[in-house]
Amino acid sequence: MKNAETTIAKLTEVGIRRYSMIEEGDRILVAVSGGKDSTALAYDLAMKRKWWPARFEIRAIHIATDFCSCCKKSALFELLDSWDIAHVSIDVPVIGRLKPGKSMNCWWCSTQRRTELIHYALAEGFNKVALGHHLDDMVETLLMNMLYKAQISGMLPVVKYNKYPLSVIRPLALCEERQIIAFADEKGFRSAVCTCPYGLESKRREVRGRISSLTGGSSELKRNLFDSMSKVNQEYLA
Amino acid sequence: MKNAETTIAKLTEVGIRRYSMIEEGDRILVAVSGGKDSTALAYDLAMKRKWWPARFEIRAIHIATDFCSCCKKSALFELLDSWDIAHVSIDVPVIGRLKPGKSMNCWWCSTQRRTELIHYALAEGFNKVALGHHLDDMVETLLMNMLYKAQISGMLPVVKYNKYPLSVIRPLALCEERQIIAFADEKGFRSAVCTCPYGLESKRREVRGRISSLTGGSSELKRNLFDSMSKVNQEYLA
Repeated sequence: MKNAETTIAKLTEVGIRRYSMIEEGDRILVAVSGGKDSTALAYDLAMKRKWWPARFEIRAIHIATDFCSCCKKSALFELLDSWDIAHVSIDVPVIGRLKPGKSMNCWWCSTQRRTELIHYALAEGFNKVALGHHLDDMVETLLMNMLYKAQISGMLPVVKYNKYPLSVIRPLALCEERQIIAFADEKGFRSAVCTCPYGLESKRREVRGRISSLTGGSSELKRNLFDSMSKVNQEYLA
Repeated sequence: MKNAETTIAKLTEVGIRRYSMIEEGDRILVAVSGGKDSTALAYDLAMKRKWWPARFEIRAIHIATDFCSCCKKSALFELLDSWDIAHVSIDVPVIGRLKPGKSMNCWWCSTQRRTELIHYALAEGFNKVALGHHLDDMVETLLMNMLYKAQISGMLPVVKYNKYPLSVIRPLALCEERQIIAFADEKGFRSAVCTCPYGLESKRREVRGRISSLTGGSSELKRNLFDSMSKVNQEYLA
């Protein structure tokens, strides 16, 4: 194993154990977009499947939209095949489902795709859905909620649905984005990234720059922001 | 009343009411350093004393240290006299009390001064201590705790001591620093500011710059950070 791969493998191992993400007999559906994060996640879980103490099954799912023609699906599927990961692709007409007069937005698009993901998982008997969010995403969510929603609220490494026999797990929770980029570069799968054609993610990009100013680029301070979510001193919050 | 003065008067009024800071018969000890914040606070409380529905008494206390000779005490006392605020000064030998081999630090200095403040308040029968912290201080404390202590913890507008019949109130909680600066400029009392000769506050200054990058200088986003402390979504924090 090369350097960046070892880093990711260790951090996901710590995260999976710390948050009890994987249990014996789990059937895990891995959402893969073709981007570096979920591709790294799929690879990592495929490797862990070989030796992890609890036995688990994985299948990758790609949710294609009616506006995405750039995501290089075949390159992604070749990678998944080479790692012996079964995969499926579902088409969700995100534009087609827009009500007249409504324009595309992140909330609509992600809700549509998340709904399909959950339906597929339930129909096929999966009990976990693995998503590729990493530490930077989670810190970003916390600060976006504070800055724009005026509330302290984050993104959890594990979320159990009340309505369904299903949990969302985020095994990359302890990995920084720069570590995933290094890993993707090392493995050579960085090219399958697909970006939003609507440019709707501009606010998130802006916030990314601001968070980077806040931490001065320090990984230690960024990890402190992440860790703060599990140490809430309610007595000193109004 | 001029413009900046009105702004401060309104914001402190909202703050005092929202957090129930002043009650009938309160004896309030106002800590004054000679800096713009606590001077603005003393002035504002002196004005409110004339018409506020609940009657209250104020006295100003200046805690002088053995390293501060720059604080222009007499200028401060003249201002307090002109506003009809009784005042007292106490000398605390912060350097003198350092144990051999220990060097000066913010924690030691502020603990020594806070202890004297509380002792004086209790000995003289005050039930509230008013401090000049403003909204920027409170947002700064939140983010410093997140960045350096890895915990979500803030500074409250009102803190009731369990050990003593005493509360700390921060009537400037809803005022931004820039609003207090404008007010101090308008009233012409900005010159009595005393800065730490040890330069120990450099980390706080650095954090101030970083927070400013985080909010892009937007007051709205800064107020959202402040408001987030009263909307903690525990369900989405690990």
